[in-house]
Amino acid sequence: MKLSNIVTIALDAMGGDYAPACVVEGAEILLRRYNNVRFIFFGDRNKIDQLFQIHQTVEAFSEIVHTDVLVAPHDKPSVALRRGSKSSMRLAIDAVKEGRADCVVSAGNTGALMAMSKMVFKTLPGISRPAIAALVPTIKGDCVLLDLGANVESNANELVQFAIMGDAFAKTVLSLQSPKIGLLNVGSEELKGHDEVKEASAILRNTELGLNFYGFVEGNDIGNGTVDVVVTDGFTGNIALKTAEGIGKMVSTYVANAFKSSFFAKIGYLLAKPAMASLRKTLDPRRRNGAMFLGLSEIAIKSHGSADGYSYYFALKVAVEVVSNRINDKILEELKLSLG
Amino acid sequence: MKLSNIVTIALDAMGGDYAPACVVEGAEILLRRYNNVRFIFFGDRNKIDQLFQIHQTVEAFSEIVHTDVLVAPHDKPSVALRRGSKSSMRLAIDAVKEGRADCVVSAGNTGALMAMSKMVFKTLPGISRPAIAALVPTIKGDCVLLDLGANVESNANELVQFAIMGDAFAKTVLSLQSPKIGLLNVGSEELKGHDEVKEASAILRNTELGLNFYGFVEGNDIGNGTVDVVVTDGFTGNIALKTAEGIGKMVSTYVANAFKSSFFAKIGYLLAKPAMASLRKTLDPRRRNGAMFLGLSEIAIKSHGSADGYSYYFALKVAVEVVSNRINDKILEELKLSLG
Repeated sequence: MKLSNIVTIALDAMGGDYAPACVVEGAEILLRRYNNVRFIFFGDRNKIDQLFQIHQTVEAFSEIVHTDVLVAPHDKPSVALRRGSKSSMRLAIDAVKEGRADCVVSAGNTGALMAMSKMVFKTLPGISRPAIAALVPTIKGDCVLLDLGANVESNANELVQFAIMGDAFAKTVLSLQSPKIGLLNVGSEELKGHDEVKEASAILRNTELGLNFYGFVEGNDIGNGTVDVVVTDGFTGNIALKTAEGIGKMVSTYVANAFKSSFFAKIGYLLAKPAMASLRKTLDPRRRNGAMFLGLSEIAIKSHGSADGYSYYFALKVAVEVVSNRINDKILEELKLSLG
Repeated sequence: MKLSNIVTIALDAMGGDYAPACVVEGAEILLRRYNNVRFIFFGDRNKIDQLFQIHQTVEAFSEIVHTDVLVAPHDKPSVALRRGSKSSMRLAIDAVKEGRADCVVSAGNTGALMAMSKMVFKTLPGISRPAIAALVPTIKGDCVLLDLGANVESNANELVQFAIMGDAFAKTVLSLQSPKIGLLNVGSEELKGHDEVKEASAILRNTELGLNFYGFVEGNDIGNGTVDVVVTDGFTGNIALKTAEGIGKMVSTYVANAFKSSFFAKIGYLLAKPAMASLRKTLDPRRRNGAMFLGLSEIAIKSHGSADGYSYYFALKVAVEVVSNRINDKILEELKLSLG
């Protein structure tokens, strides 16, 4: 890891539905807000150069490493690992490993990005498996949800590691001093649920861990903002996150349709428009883009595949914040405490 | 099971936060819409009699079986089983077993109701474990989600049984000819997810089952209404349902706050009020009350514990519909086909 204050981001310029445009546009928005960031774009030099004509500030803080090879959205992770050694994704990962960049950001194939990052970076000492963490809106602000699908099953120790990593992520990205940690379960009573969550709860109750452990939370506690970090296995976390997205979209669609349903409702909409625009901004999923692969020895951030430039900016912002705040040092410190 | 067209409902009159009032009020609403229903109220005769003074139509179609004993909301299922043999919940269950009623409805302790119904009714031949099913709103209407927590883990065969039972429930309660069945997973590709869901998918692809199997669905497909029946294990289903409830509530709260945020927004709200009222009715969770314990040899319906009379009516409605449509015959028929 570089030790200067400059944060250098290795960008998989070819990953994502709107790549490379979304990547260059995201970088430009980031440069308006941070003066200490630099980029290495990995991908098709011609396409990137063309975009640099329009986004000249980005060009001034960037270099390009050309490659024709890319990981396709539906490539199997194993195939990407075998054949993707010259891909834009892999070269960006290698740049971090070799110390030329502080982190990698990609909107490409999630499975391939995870497989490659895991192989190249390895996990942090004391962490058995990485977890994917991201922000979810609640009535009280955002909370961190993990794991979102890096693992389909997790044992108690792994869940405890997720709690430690989620704690560090919430401290960094949500600027919280002592995030409240909850373990997702089917009831708040200690006797309910899988053996794994019961055992993890028993370990987390051990106050030496230094975590602010709330106990079990249920699905509705996510939207209620009961805790700042919701810990679960990757199968459940992925389904909870996507269920939340789907229901959020459903309610928004119903509200939009209601506003169109009569003449008076339409006038009402015009009057309430600024308030609704502000609400839309609050709930805009683009503002929560940027999932972190926690538990690897280097920083890898996954942008949503369908991100536009605005959304990509938020993934870059997460990258800058976790690098600047040395999230891996925080995790290692907390692991040491918990083992001590 | 009684063979007349009259549907007799055994009511745990003491179960629920607002019992027995919610039970009597729900019964009255049901009587306005169905002329073939009768009730047996199990519980405190004095309290029920007092309510009958106000709701005399209910009295005309009801009998009361007095008991002082009740299952408390936080009694462990094992305790309820041991000590609750004279409880309103248990007497209502026994009435169904003895053929004096066609189904039982309770808003009491879910775990106790499940444990008692399972012990008294037993599972249908061919069903290893019961599952809890209920309706969830989608952008295209309602869908059936199961299991909601009867089991924390399920193997492939059990998931297949849930699919068969969910199919019968959707045919009955949503009046669908050929409901589309989806299996909840973390991705739509066949290679993702737990072994159990992959194996269940392979069995369900067997066309002889006669189910309209769509394949894997993800969390966001619930709100999108991609399928009519979403099948999963009880741990995941419980968390998906409650996550959906929490996010729905969160978005509604944000919308309500937006309407209060400025003078113009308030005027806008007044103009859009009828449209919003109609929307609120569409999404009203009370209208989806009534979870069925599928796979038992008799019909048991669980009302939400916090149900008011209006909400309780919907649980009673589910009871009448599944009894009238002989849902257990449908399940047995489909099981026979699948084994044949």
